Amino acid sequence: MKNHSCIDHVDIQNMDGRYRNNFINSLSGYKSANLIGTENNGLANLALFSSAVHVGANPPLMGLVSRPNTVPRHTLENIEATGFYTINSVSKTFIKQAHHCSARSDRDHSEFDFSGLNYQRLDGFSAPFVKESNLKLAMKLDDVLHIKRNGTVFIVGEIMSAYLPQEAIYDDGFIDHEKLSTVCISGLDSYHTVGHSERFEYAKNTKAPSSKFS
Amino acid sequence: MKNHSCIDHVDIQNMDGRYRNNFINSLSGYKSANLIGTENNGLANLALFSSAVHVGANPPLMGLVSRPNTVPRHTLENIEATGFYTINSVSKTFIKQAHHCSARSDRDHSEFDFSGLNYQRLDGFSAPFVKESNLKLAMKLDDVLHIKRNGTVFIVGEIMSAYLPQEAIYDDGFIDHEKLSTVCISGLDSYHTVGHSERFEYAKNTKAPSSKFS
Repeated sequence: MKNHSCIDHVDIQNMDGRYRNNFINSLSGYKSANLIGTENNGLANLALFSSAVHVGANPPLMGLVSRPNTVPRHTLENIEATGFYTINSVSKTFIKQAHHCSARSDRDHSEFDFSGLNYQRLDGFSAPFVKESNLKLAMKLDDVLHIKRNGTVFIVGEIMSAYLPQEAIYDDGFIDHEKLSTVCISGLDSYHTVGHSERFEYAKNTKAPSSKFS
Repeated sequence: MKNHSCIDHVDIQNMDGRYRNNFINSLSGYKSANLIGTENNGLANLALFSSAVHVGANPPLMGLVSRPNTVPRHTLENIEATGFYTINSVSKTFIKQAHHCSARSDRDHSEFDFSGLNYQRLDGFSAPFVKESNLKLAMKLDDVLHIKRNGTVFIVGEIMSAYLPQEAIYDDGFIDHEKLSTVCISGLDSYHTVGHSERFEYAKNTKAPSSKFS
């Protein structure tokens, strides 16, 4: 495609709020699709996040961006109150139910009740998993970093356990998300299936990378 | 898929380092694919990041996870030294060149020289863009947050300008990444084209979400 338009800082400021939300949320590219499960005082909560991001392998850490607690944010409140949560990959078989969990809801009206997704307990872990998910993580809160500019937070957690089908794990540790039918998100509301993949060898600056399975 | 295996904290600790890197890097699901362009003292740098994440729409903010400066990290050093950088979406036409930019390299051996990607200046911005990219962002550093547990950092930046083809922007501000041929990443080295998408209406907890274009 040619003829790139420049949309500058003033154009962005002048955008209508909903238009700007769609536009800016689209700029990072494809995003992970995960449901975050929490529970506090017997009330279970499930929320859709597209901001789960790798932070480190050893110790195994993952991050999440969350809006602040100045408006009701049950996920963040529950994580801070209990120290535990779950991360559940979204598969194409339940994207509609997952999107439903992005609805605003009272604390005592659980997403497990209205979305159709099933509550699951595993190995005595105190936060609930999504039964339908093909890849589930038990998480322990490590830190909450405050982004001063807009009051959002970056939640850092440690992966305590991972639940997934053994046949999706390759001999080198890589997990085949095509086998798990994992989807990704763009913008605020677009869910995508993922197609053809190509893996490359560890890159060196002295030669062009080769494909791993060619 | 049935028969989920549980891989627990001790299993993860006991993994071989390279296996653990592949495994843990796969757990967040599909990730965005972006090249970060920086320049300091006339030396240009280009690095592949799969951690670009939406932080806020107003002001327009994006985050990046980076390993610390304790080992040479030209991208982070250049961003902290100059305050400016670019984020360039990776399209399927140049995934091999993009992966090449993940190679370790001396500071005076620029990825623009060995990867085959072309250096581009736009509107006097001080950091370089990737000419081949279909969606390019001019970024201004806002803050660097330190993740104590493993020494990584979360770089927060403000979007100053976005360059993309007008025909990829919908009437509601949504950007069609299928039109831009944007790819996503899983694990450390797998690049995926993205297929069918479905957009949903703003979710309400009182009814199941409907598709936007059905």
